[in-house]
Amino acid sequence: MKKPILLAACIAALASACAMVPDAGPLPSWNDTAPKEAVIEFVARVTTKGSPDFVPVPERIAVFDNDGTLWAEQPVYTQLAFIIDQIKAMAPQHPEWNTTEPFASLLAGDMQGVMASGEAGVAALLAAPHAGMSTDEFSHDVLAWIETARHPKTGAAYTQMTYQPMLELLEYLRANGFKTFIVSGGGIDFMRPWSEQVYGIPPEQVVGTSGGLAFEDKNGQYTLRKLPELVLNDDKAGKPVGIQRHIGRRPIAAFGNSDGDLQMLQWTCAAPGARLCTYIHHTDEQREWAYDRQSHIGKLDLGLDEAHAKGWTVVDMKQDWKVVFPAQ
Amino acid sequence: MKKPILLAACIAALASACAMVPDAGPLPSWNDTAPKEAVIEFVARVTTKGSPDFVPVPERIAVFDNDGTLWAEQPVYTQLAFIIDQIKAMAPQHPEWNTTEPFASLLAGDMQGVMASGEAGVAALLAAPHAGMSTDEFSHDVLAWIETARHPKTGAAYTQMTYQPMLELLEYLRANGFKTFIVSGGGIDFMRPWSEQVYGIPPEQVVGTSGGLAFEDKNGQYTLRKLPELVLNDDKAGKPVGIQRHIGRRPIAAFGNSDGDLQMLQWTCAAPGARLCTYIHHTDEQREWAYDRQSHIGKLDLGLDEAHAKGWTVVDMKQDWKVVFPAQ
Repeated sequence: MKKPILLAACIAALASACAMVPDAGPLPSWNDTAPKEAVIEFVARVTTKGSPDFVPVPERIAVFDNDGTLWAEQPVYTQLAFIIDQIKAMAPQHPEWNTTEPFASLLAGDMQGVMASGEAGVAALLAAPHAGMSTDEFSHDVLAWIETARHPKTGAAYTQMTYQPMLELLEYLRANGFKTFIVSGGGIDFMRPWSEQVYGIPPEQVVGTSGGLAFEDKNGQYTLRKLPELVLNDDKAGKPVGIQRHIGRRPIAAFGNSDGDLQMLQWTCAAPGARLCTYIHHTDEQREWAYDRQSHIGKLDLGLDEAHAKGWTVVDMKQDWKVVFPAQ
Repeated sequence: MKKPILLAACIAALASACAMVPDAGPLPSWNDTAPKEAVIEFVARVTTKGSPDFVPVPERIAVFDNDGTLWAEQPVYTQLAFIIDQIKAMAPQHPEWNTTEPFASLLAGDMQGVMASGEAGVAALLAAPHAGMSTDEFSHDVLAWIETARHPKTGAAYTQMTYQPMLELLEYLRANGFKTFIVSGGGIDFMRPWSEQVYGIPPEQVVGTSGGLAFEDKNGQYTLRKLPELVLNDDKAGKPVGIQRHIGRRPIAAFGNSDGDLQMLQWTCAAPGARLCTYIHHTDEQREWAYDRQSHIGKLDLGLDEAHAKGWTVVDMKQDWKVVFPAQ
């Protein structure tokens, strides 16, 4: 490499670093209540050199659940809406689905019937349409869908159903040397095609429920194909496993919204040193949804008790956020 | 965040970026032969804005095999040396090993007998001493061992058995916006404790053979325990699988030294656009070892043929490297 190229890279790095200097304070969509203060105080503690809680940049790992933490998960998980649309589109090639549960109920629009098939039925739904697909084909299908599908309540694109305060939080942490990861029960292959554009989180920093893959060589044509087997169920006790497998060190900050995130928060905050564990509590039935202990989606019950007992930060969406969704 | 802190971060970023400007040219331990030219030309093509082969920074993914590519793998894989030492240390607590193969052979110093147990025997060796260990304990054991163990031929620390030209290559690629990953058949938990210090590659960018993990909660004491099951055999066709699972996008540069790396190179270089696939060929019996088609360790046979047929770069260690190991 010639020196002028390196100097150019150096100047580009300066421009890029300095472009991050905002005009206003951080987290503008957060009210000046306890959660915002807790975040800012935590970041100051771990980034101030000489502070007893100082954490070197490579160890500033922050993990985020996705559904209900970074974007809305009501009235159904976005990935389920995707799969329903996929199955409907593929149904003409699968006449057997008309007489096989839970496909028959799904195609008849009977979600009660789908739910009656239990976890095994839902797992079959999740796996069936995609087994044997190449990772490239699947990625293409996800992108095509997410660009055109609209949320059933708001009519907005799903990528507009992200939470503006959380987008600001991701940016704020990265500006302070954090590496931000998604650790979600959702499918890793469903999130990666759009996570970089929507959240600024590259595919290698997305951890999610993962299936098997097979490398195929047909006369020098190489393909990675999705297999129906489960390799990681990245939910509950699977979240610390996913963190260890993909990240290999313990986060210092974790953000979730349901009991499915509890073990991730436990694992993060049990280690010594400054730690930030935060639950997003869905309390805003006007601007979003209000649900917690009794909800079938995003149930927050044990987690809420443990958050109170351990003094974790709990974000009250109604009270602590100025806006919920990004301006259209 | 207050503005002065951000400005400080901005100045720190400038200082850090500009500190990378070297006084001499890149890759000083490489002779000015074809492989060095190929690397530099490739980097110029993918980093020059306006070039038809320009690749945006987030997509500049480079993957490296470890054993035989970044450090020596003769006379036995370093991880095997570690496991032998571990088993010897643990033998007093396992009297049954004296009558169970391949442990009995290993404890008797009979490596032929160990090898006679085949792949299943070696797999048992790899798994047995560590199953049930916590990830923290294992990490501690690895670090303690690697700080004190010495290579049987050179007497050097294993971390001094890394290849100086490859350390320079890692640094050179990172200075040009690449993200560098290890993709190794070696154990992910064996490499991560020291990869950041030795290679500048953080744990989250280490992909390797992985076992199962279980999250354990004993009255609020949380532990991740290693299970004897295999989750990823990150070798041969398992390498593109590991790449997809951990990185989620296709690399543009891949470096290996054996047939175990062939599928990784195939997957990397079959995609359109500028790609760099490189084999390190062990040709230097004076300064390192000379082996390829007939070797039991790091066999390079099919890969060498394919490299020649496809015009991949082949590094002749004897001819292309000024030095092999870092100065002591």
